[in-house]
Amino acid sequence: MTAPPSHLDIAVIPGDGIGPEVTREAVKVLRAVTGADVELHLTDYELGADHWLATGETLPDTTLEQLRSHDAILFGAVGAAPGDTRVPSGLIEREFLLKLRFSLDHFVNLRPSRLYSGVPSPLAAPGDIDFVVVREGTEGPYTGNGGTLRGGTPHEVATEVSLNTAHGVERVVRDAFMRAAARRGRLTLVHKHNVLVYAGHLWRRTVEAVAVEFPDVTHDYLHVDAAMIFLVTDPSRFDVIVTDNLFGDIVTDLAAAVTGGIGLAASANLNMDRTAPSMFEPVHGSAPDIAGQQLADPTASILSAALLLRHLGLQDPATRIERAVEEDIAARSGRRSTAAVGDAITAMVS
Amino acid sequence: MTAPPSHLDIAVIPGDGIGPEVTREAVKVLRAVTGADVELHLTDYELGADHWLATGETLPDTTLEQLRSHDAILFGAVGAAPGDTRVPSGLIEREFLLKLRFSLDHFVNLRPSRLYSGVPSPLAAPGDIDFVVVREGTEGPYTGNGGTLRGGTPHEVATEVSLNTAHGVERVVRDAFMRAAARRGRLTLVHKHNVLVYAGHLWRRTVEAVAVEFPDVTHDYLHVDAAMIFLVTDPSRFDVIVTDNLFGDIVTDLAAAVTGGIGLAASANLNMDRTAPSMFEPVHGSAPDIAGQQLADPTASILSAALLLRHLGLQDPATRIERAVEEDIAARSGRRSTAAVGDAITAMVS
Ligand SMILES: CC(C)[C@H](C(=O)O)[C@@H](O)C(=O)O
Ligand SMILES: CC(C)[C@H](C(=O)O)[C@@H](O)C(=O)O
Repeated sequence: MTAPPSHLDIAVIPGDGIGPEVTREAVKVLRAVTGADVELHLTDYELGADHWLATGETLPDTTLEQLRSHDAILFGAVGAAPGDTRVPSGLIEREFLLKLRFSLDHFVNLRPSRLYSGVPSPLAAPGDIDFVVVREGTEGPYTGNGGTLRGGTPHEVATEVSLNTAHGVERVVRDAFMRAAARRGRLTLVHKHNVLVYAGHLWRRTVEAVAVEFPDVTHDYLHVDAAMIFLVTDPSRFDVIVTDNLFGDIVTDLAAAVTGGIGLAASANLNMDRTAPSMFEPVHGSAPDIAGQQLADPTASILSAALLLRHLGLQDPATRIERAVEEDIAARSGRRSTAAVGDAITAMVS
Repeated sequence: MTAPPSHLDIAVIPGDGIGPEVTREAVKVLRAVTGADVELHLTDYELGADHWLATGETLPDTTLEQLRSHDAILFGAVGAAPGDTRVPSGLIEREFLLKLRFSLDHFVNLRPSRLYSGVPSPLAAPGDIDFVVVREGTEGPYTGNGGTLRGGTPHEVATEVSLNTAHGVERVVRDAFMRAAARRGRLTLVHKHNVLVYAGHLWRRTVEAVAVEFPDVTHDYLHVDAAMIFLVTDPSRFDVIVTDNLFGDIVTDLAAAVTGGIGLAASANLNMDRTAPSMFEPVHGSAPDIAGQQLADPTASILSAALLLRHLGLQDPATRIERAVEEDIAARSGRRSTAAVGDAITAMVS
């Protein structure tokens, strides 16, 4: 056991839409929970769609290098309003968000799914939902490989290539087994190996091989379509789900929905080799339609800050945030402003 | 309006597991509903995992040619038990089921989703669910393109290639718009164009182009992850969903789950150019664990038979089956055998 750090150097990227509002509350909670024990050094970075509109920059290499120097990145959300035609669709997502995940080798995209007591689920009988999705973050159909032949003609062919490597799959599968061993000891691989034969078999073989190192973890397999059914009929069957980048994207939004919405879903983009800082962000997007009105729930951002602390070895303050969120949710009645939620949780962890 | 056919020549492929049981009931209903008006000629084909174990054949070219000569194919389900290591995983799915869809150019994979009155949904407040998914059936990541480099070594690279053509996308998008025009006039494209740029833009451009021909249909777009959320929080927002082969696979299983389970979900693999017979099958699989016990619900198979009749121009008997199913479901109490459900519906359409 190394001693918890006494100094944290965090990059903060509030981003667009509701990003700044929710991040402000997460920072409030971070400051309160670390208190006098930890010297907290925060550096703000202006990035996102608004920044692109103002400067034409998505993520310059110099900024990327600066970001590398921090212990971790706390990120809000990016993205222009869906109708805003000034921002080419997907540009910020790819050239900022995905560029960060790929450049900083965030190979574990960790997304806990828990139904907090007091939170209404859209499911009639949700049961006790508490699982984590370990989504691969640097491969699959997210690599930007693909192209267009004879674009715009009746003979157009468009391809998308999913890239999967033994290196990439093994490290994320091993991480998932480790998490399962520290939890309820049950791992589920989600893929579609009956159709995606090549990638599917790599994933399956890797799970079988790594499983040998974890005799206390049982594992099973679900096709992604079957996983959909279980996520709404029996979500409490899951402990740790490991899956590829695209299936992980799909599974985690459904998981967030059945546990009461993406307003509560936190995530961590982890470089588990610690060769670059990890990044912590709510699963939700920038929601431009409600931005600036103190309507957004900052809980997902606050829980992402807890994941940040845990990743950096500050288990106690992380747990204190999570307990405070639990209490805050249980005590909810009526609508509160973004800041009011942040203040309530801040008070509890102070 | 051409007159409805007075003669139907149907290939029946019962398949594995519960396939034969549920298909038997669908055939019973087909015979009863067509009655004296239509001369019904049925030819059984033994195919599937059991047939492969016995003969080593998945779908020989001669059988494929015979199948082509029929007006339509009624198909049950194929697939060995998950634990049965004698059957290479995915073999039957690919070399029989997908081979049929691709060889017979089933470019519209039609999957209606309706919450029948009296059917319990896993959603607490499902609302009025009634939409159809038009899933592309002959392209996308289902084409078997891809490969493995340095397989089984630490340097393995596995690829999966999604192929999308202007021809393939346009014909399915136009079909979806036509269906939307005949329904509530609302089409939703589901894709992930912020990440799958090349395929995504082909799909989007095609929808925009075809939309011009359908001024009475409004259309919107959802990323597949956002679609997950709406499918459990507001499924009644959907009328017609059009999407690619893989997203369609995922969306339709979730849709089946929220409308009370795949025991009720019918599907049609349509060659809308009528250059080859279309195929009609329940969305569910062969469920070997409950096979031969009269436990399976034949409703999905019976509803698939109704889709078959409608595709062949027999609107009236198709509607009679659907009404009978509706009545049967509304009157349900307690478990009935597979045959009892079939008998009840048969009695109503006779
Ligand atoms: C914005 C988008 C590129 C991103 C993804 O697909 O990974 C988002 O949906 C997420 O899940 O973080
Ligand atoms: C069995 C499998 C290949 C098939 C598919 O993925 O299309 C099934 O899941 C379906 O939806 O009909």
